[in-house]
Amino acid sequence: MTSDSGDEASVSLREAGEFRIIDRVTAGRVQPGTTLLGPGDDAAVVAAADGRVVGCTDVLVEGVHFRLDWSSPEQVGRKAAAANLADIAAMGAVPTALLVGLACPSTTPAARAEALADGLWAEASAVGAGVVGGDLTSGPVVVLSVTALGSLEGRAPVLRSGARPGDRVACCGRLGWSAAGLAVLGRGFRSPVALVDAHRVPAPPYGEGPRAADAGATSMIDVSDGLLADLGHVARASGVSVRLHSRAFTVPDRLAEIGSALGVDPMDWLLTGGEDHALVATFPVDGELPAGWTEIGAVEHPGDDGPVVTVDGQVHEGDAGWLHFAKY
Amino acid sequence: MTSDSGDEASVSLREAGEFRIIDRVTAGRVQPGTTLLGPGDDAAVVAAADGRVVGCTDVLVEGVHFRLDWSSPEQVGRKAAAANLADIAAMGAVPTALLVGLACPSTTPAARAEALADGLWAEASAVGAGVVGGDLTSGPVVVLSVTALGSLEGRAPVLRSGARPGDRVACCGRLGWSAAGLAVLGRGFRSPVALVDAHRVPAPPYGEGPRAADAGATSMIDVSDGLLADLGHVARASGVSVRLHSRAFTVPDRLAEIGSALGVDPMDWLLTGGEDHALVATFPVDGELPAGWTEIGAVEHPGDDGPVVTVDGQVHEGDAGWLHFAKY
Repeated sequence: MTSDSGDEASVSLREAGEFRIIDRVTAGRVQPGTTLLGPGDDAAVVAAADGRVVGCTDVLVEGVHFRLDWSSPEQVGRKAAAANLADIAAMGAVPTALLVGLACPSTTPAARAEALADGLWAEASAVGAGVVGGDLTSGPVVVLSVTALGSLEGRAPVLRSGARPGDRVACCGRLGWSAAGLAVLGRGFRSPVALVDAHRVPAPPYGEGPRAADAGATSMIDVSDGLLADLGHVARASGVSVRLHSRAFTVPDRLAEIGSALGVDPMDWLLTGGEDHALVATFPVDGELPAGWTEIGAVEHPGDDGPVVTVDGQVHEGDAGWLHFAKY
Repeated sequence: MTSDSGDEASVSLREAGEFRIIDRVTAGRVQPGTTLLGPGDDAAVVAAADGRVVGCTDVLVEGVHFRLDWSSPEQVGRKAAAANLADIAAMGAVPTALLVGLACPSTTPAARAEALADGLWAEASAVGAGVVGGDLTSGPVVVLSVTALGSLEGRAPVLRSGARPGDRVACCGRLGWSAAGLAVLGRGFRSPVALVDAHRVPAPPYGEGPRAADAGATSMIDVSDGLLADLGHVARASGVSVRLHSRAFTVPDRLAEIGSALGVDPMDWLLTGGEDHALVATFPVDGELPAGWTEIGAVEHPGDDGPVVTVDGQVHEGDAGWLHFAKY
């Protein structure tokens, strides 16, 4: 921390020092109006206008959740932000702020930490939120822990436990794109770019969370582990079963094409692929679905085996989605 | 996740599975009244009665911030919580909630993750806060990222930047105990227990943060890096210098004894030791200090060299405190 290097691009975190990196990643950022006190003190202060704050945390680990040879640091930052911002949206809330814990090796180029911060900021500011604070420390691999805060703006939170028999099940946003992109990367390819990019940076329909809440959604969740797995969480929390109709799903041409090339049924990606952060919700049968939502099934009383999720009346064979600790 | 093991004590995270561990660490916990929605949904909802929420994040990495042969997992959980709860207190706020991101190897005993959670809960509930959510995932070492939320209860936040020339400088809480305990552990000893335990689990004076705010504190910070280092942050943020008087410090007998045994000047521990999370604040010269606070110096106009922290008129020789990336 005593002298500047002549070659800024190659400066490591150890050479730059914690405080200079924090100065760099916070300088020049434009905070939204909800940020009452931004980075630089012991803690930040964020507006919580209706007297409540929504909060969630998600951790991404290098080699488990992302690979820096497959994604740029900026993309990893955007993805980490998106995973959390989508959780806020799935409560029916509007994101206000991110807090970021970043551990990385001291040999990490300072530019990489800055690119991660750029990605976090890009995704946050796109939904009107700010990065209000965090912690930077050393560790053996890159671990990015993001906490998102949000505002319900007077709404009741939409829980996983509110689905009722008779409700319509609908979703909004991409399904299976991230899984298809991961399959492409796993085989050593870099295209189709649209699919690979969907894996690198999801495009959650953030605004649809509050919209679904306003439309009377009885339950909601974001698809982070896979549609069947996440609807399974809703089914168990609500004490109901969920019946999906495969005819309600349209397989996008891109997924059909690459599924054919790789020998994969693209419906598997739609039903079990995680990380697209689509929103899936249940709505009263007598109401209208918000524009852009697709009805995919119905909520039923559970059978003798308890809450299950079926597709065309059958429990899906194979994995329902991502399980932590199963593969590492 | 398909069958129970006969020997619960030796079950690993991989064998138990993410969701069963989360069930175990959340079951039976008593949430405070500020927790409007606890763990189990996409996000938690926490009361923020005055329309603002205070938030901060701190990351602890195994081998960098703690060693599991020196501290129990329960102690690591308490320490991680304390570091964040002290930051909330240093704003003049009362902690309400923790969100926890935990990455650990899939071979980790499930009991270890549960003990970490027990420690987080113990420290949080002691100040009336709850552990409201989190994320558990696999990673090569234990990384514990904690976000604390808090309520200012109508107070203005006490910033680092508010110190004014003429203010009194005062502190509350232990200084140097954690550093002395670390020195003991580093030489292979396990006693004096009081010092070693102070390193394992700090005892921040949480309630003194809001009390100092109510008493008119003009600036405040918690001592996480070391008194001189943290007062340096206040000095730079406020554009002032800080003059400390060594005669104002009482070296506890325990620190004097072990300093003598190890050949260390115990004043070095008091001035540069971090992780005790004492609170240091500046107060108007014409007011009373809250009970339990010790006056240790005064705020001055900065000299030609800009803001500095001096002890008996001299800039301290040697490290002022902990620098990340300097040792890893």
